[in-house]
Amino acid sequence: MTDEPRQLHLNAFLMNTGHHEASWRLPESDPYSSTSIRHYTRLAQIAERGRLDSIFFADSPTLWGTIGRRPSGSLEPTVVLAAIAAQTERIGLIATASTTYNEPYNLARRFASVDHLSGGRAGWNIVTTATLDAARNFNLDELPSHASRYARAEEFLQVAKKLWDSWDDAAVLADKESGLWGDDRLLYPAGHEGEHFQVAGALNVPRSPQGHPLLVQAGSSEDGKAFAANHAEAIFTAQQTLAEAQAFYADIKRRAKAAGRDPDAVLVLPGIVPVLGATEAEARELEAELDRLIVPQYALNNLAKQLKLDPSELDLDRELPEHLPTEDEIEGAKSRFTLIVDLARRERLTVRRLIGRLGGGRGHRTFTGTPEQVADAIFEWFDGDGNGLAADGFNIMPAVLPSGLEAFVDQVVPILQDKGRFRTEYAGSTLREHYGLARPENPRRREALEAAVKGVLAHSR
Amino acid sequence: MTDEPRQLHLNAFLMNTGHHEASWRLPESDPYSSTSIRHYTRLAQIAERGRLDSIFFADSPTLWGTIGRRPSGSLEPTVVLAAIAAQTERIGLIATASTTYNEPYNLARRFASVDHLSGGRAGWNIVTTATLDAARNFNLDELPSHASRYARAEEFLQVAKKLWDSWDDAAVLADKESGLWGDDRLLYPAGHEGEHFQVAGALNVPRSPQGHPLLVQAGSSEDGKAFAANHAEAIFTAQQTLAEAQAFYADIKRRAKAAGRDPDAVLVLPGIVPVLGATEAEARELEAELDRLIVPQYALNNLAKQLKLDPSELDLDRELPEHLPTEDEIEGAKSRFTLIVDLARRERLTVRRLIGRLGGGRGHRTFTGTPEQVADAIFEWFDGDGNGLAADGFNIMPAVLPSGLEAFVDQVVPILQDKGRFRTEYAGSTLREHYGLARPENPRRREALEAAVKGVLAHSR
Ligand SMILES: Cc1cc2nc3c(=O)[nH]c(=O)nc-3n(C[C@H](O)[C@H](O)[C@H](O)COP(=O)(O)O)c2cc1C
Ligand SMILES: Cc1cc2nc3c(=O)[nH]c(=O)nc-3n(C[C@H](O)[C@H](O)[C@H](O)COP(=O)(O)O)c2cc1C
Repeated sequence: MTDEPRQLHLNAFLMNTGHHEASWRLPESDPYSSTSIRHYTRLAQIAERGRLDSIFFADSPTLWGTIGRRPSGSLEPTVVLAAIAAQTERIGLIATASTTYNEPYNLARRFASVDHLSGGRAGWNIVTTATLDAARNFNLDELPSHASRYARAEEFLQVAKKLWDSWDDAAVLADKESGLWGDDRLLYPAGHEGEHFQVAGALNVPRSPQGHPLLVQAGSSEDGKAFAANHAEAIFTAQQTLAEAQAFYADIKRRAKAAGRDPDAVLVLPGIVPVLGATEAEARELEAELDRLIVPQYALNNLAKQLKLDPSELDLDRELPEHLPTEDEIEGAKSRFTLIVDLARRERLTVRRLIGRLGGGRGHRTFTGTPEQVADAIFEWFDGDGNGLAADGFNIMPAVLPSGLEAFVDQVVPILQDKGRFRTEYAGSTLREHYGLARPENPRRREALEAAVKGVLAHSR
Repeated sequence: MTDEPRQLHLNAFLMNTGHHEASWRLPESDPYSSTSIRHYTRLAQIAERGRLDSIFFADSPTLWGTIGRRPSGSLEPTVVLAAIAAQTERIGLIATASTTYNEPYNLARRFASVDHLSGGRAGWNIVTTATLDAARNFNLDELPSHASRYARAEEFLQVAKKLWDSWDDAAVLADKESGLWGDDRLLYPAGHEGEHFQVAGALNVPRSPQGHPLLVQAGSSEDGKAFAANHAEAIFTAQQTLAEAQAFYADIKRRAKAAGRDPDAVLVLPGIVPVLGATEAEARELEAELDRLIVPQYALNNLAKQLKLDPSELDLDRELPEHLPTEDEIEGAKSRFTLIVDLARRERLTVRRLIGRLGGGRGHRTFTGTPEQVADAIFEWFDGDGNGLAADGFNIMPAVLPSGLEAFVDQVVPILQDKGRFRTEYAGSTLREHYGLARPENPRRREALEAAVKGVLAHSR
């Protein structure tokens, strides 16, 4: 061990013209960016210039709400990341995909393929997809219950891991002389027969550079945290206050430990929406301009949907109604619901002001200021205040793209580097190496060897 | 109309070290090419240098047979093509995907995404996946029947088309001034309720540059041809003799016409496996070297599987057994089965010689010779012998890659160009433009306009 101080991990969460819902209306923004691979490739290259660990795309297999309000629709993230892989060298590439609306064989294979073609840079943000709209695109009339979605997710991950481990790392012989390309004894077919899935074969892709893609998770409900403790290696989360973030951090680490895992191998990355200016006044001016560009009626409809209310129940100039559903009654995104209600109640926000706060980061911590102030805000959570840590790094969600990412990379990152808390060069080449996580061993290999040894022992008796 | 002679269309079918099953054993071959994006990108760039219409990847969601015999496993084609799109400008990009083991919302979206990120170069080779192995990776114990696979495929295409047409081309307004990004009235949700699928919403991707990806089909059974007549714009097919190819060509064009389509907008592309040498003797030497490198026992097992026989029923030095299953009894790849049996019977081949013939192109026409002879072989089928045409172009399946593709592009293509039968520059930028096919109109727009007109008329009464 060296005396190097604990190092930050930084992910850039990319979303068309930025995380502020009105960012597309700024003169500088390309309102067609959601379908522009040039735009996303440029963002990835900026993030790589800043030596960030990874970029990330959210996703849901549905057109969310109306298209009137802001750029809507988005290219499927695994193909976008494959295209970006071809134009970058080191940056990690994390795509969201749903366990509720995919088949494990197809999805495990797609991530293994991106891992191969990127030289070990693939990550999967595992989500269960919380909207009825999505269910109705997949032969269903109702949203499957929260519990049943997580039960399927659990088995999905078991199958995916069996598939990623279905080729021994040594299975390919490539022996031209004998004509033997692979060793069939080093294939470990999944042979899975479970409640949700029956998957017989081996994957049709050799084990990938990282063994498994980096596994990321982003649901903060009870079931979500339990799932994260079993499987996640990095966790994205929306936290508004240091105290809440500390509690979440401690809870995740405790659960990981209880699940028999090394808590240091489960990284917690809260979101932060930086709104940057050369001076504080400039930053505030950008923030105010963005908020002025919000169309309140669209945002109100959206908020009503998240709170399971009728839009007529919300008044822009009043606080939220007294009687709201409880988290129990929400079958969709439970933890996001609670976060929004807590924020509104805690700060006694009118619907208009709540919309402003959510418009910036949809519930994530927004922070407006100079590069130094943003760096301080990062260290406040990263180092904690003596009552425990709150983060192993951050999910950077620029309010405006590309300019907000450029500002972060060119002005904030150098401060983090000067303080010795962030890399100035990539040390490794895979996403796991960036996050300091080991390549998983193949448990099937051990099982196979044990079986072989038993066979020899039985014979020698 | 100009007097330009009828123009060839050429697709390069890419497969690791080449279509000859022993190609990986040549000193020049990279036996790890099946997971190498560099290899595939290089092949695409060679094809683009030759101004070919497109490249193509076959696919099946299963590990076929054993890994001993030849490079096995392959990266998922849509992500591979996305990566290649980033490193090429014009060449069309066709991926195979199964209607039996995908959901229409996910797959329609993925192809629309590749179409966006490639600037209109995506094509989909629609297959129903003929193996039990694949079924067993998707919760099934049995291969769904041939008829039921094609019934699902038919409805799958209906849904996919509704989804690709679910955004009007004019739906995105991007009006920063008013804050209106899109016009919700120009969304046409799928609203599909069928036997296999229920898909409510609009796609979460705006209509793509080509409207629909180019639709390609490759099954030659009765059901396959009926499906092709309804949907396919290009057809890959394995044909051994000119007479058979002519009959197939005439049949497809007739069926397309009967289905109310323009037969010229359904292109027939038989496969050809060129084995090239500077002299005929050199070409024959390469062919002989490749055949020597086949391991007969592996190939025999494979043939037995295709013929639904036990390997013990085949003898390398005899012809096929007298009693074989009939095409009716085959639930897998019906037309390939018949082709193999016909070839063996017609030429009275021993199993060893049959294996040699199939080892080169798995049932596709192989042709060994000089560049001039290969060009002549192409024209023989392209122009016909007075008894009708046999092809609108070819699916080029080099026995060895990359060298066989390089030889084709550098030595055969110039002959085709000199004769004025193949482009020397791309005229368009989309895959449809390369194949001379129109961008599909959006029928939903017409429906919506008609409904609006009716509404106005009703009001004015
Ligand atoms: C940074 C971040 C990104 C997320 N991205 C997605 C996403 O892309 N798709 C999705 O369905 N859910 C996403 N989620 C999770 C949802 O917000 C929601 O929490 C989840 O679908 C249900 O989890 P829960 O009920 O356990 O909270 C994300 C969450 C966070 C914190
Ligand atoms: C050039 C060519 C490529 C093909 N590629 C695939 C493929 O990638 N995956 C697949 O399942 N079938 C593929 N097929 C089709 C199968 O060979 C088989 O014909 C099909 O799955 C069943 O169709 P059929 O029974 O209508 O003949 C291809 C056929 C041809 C001629």
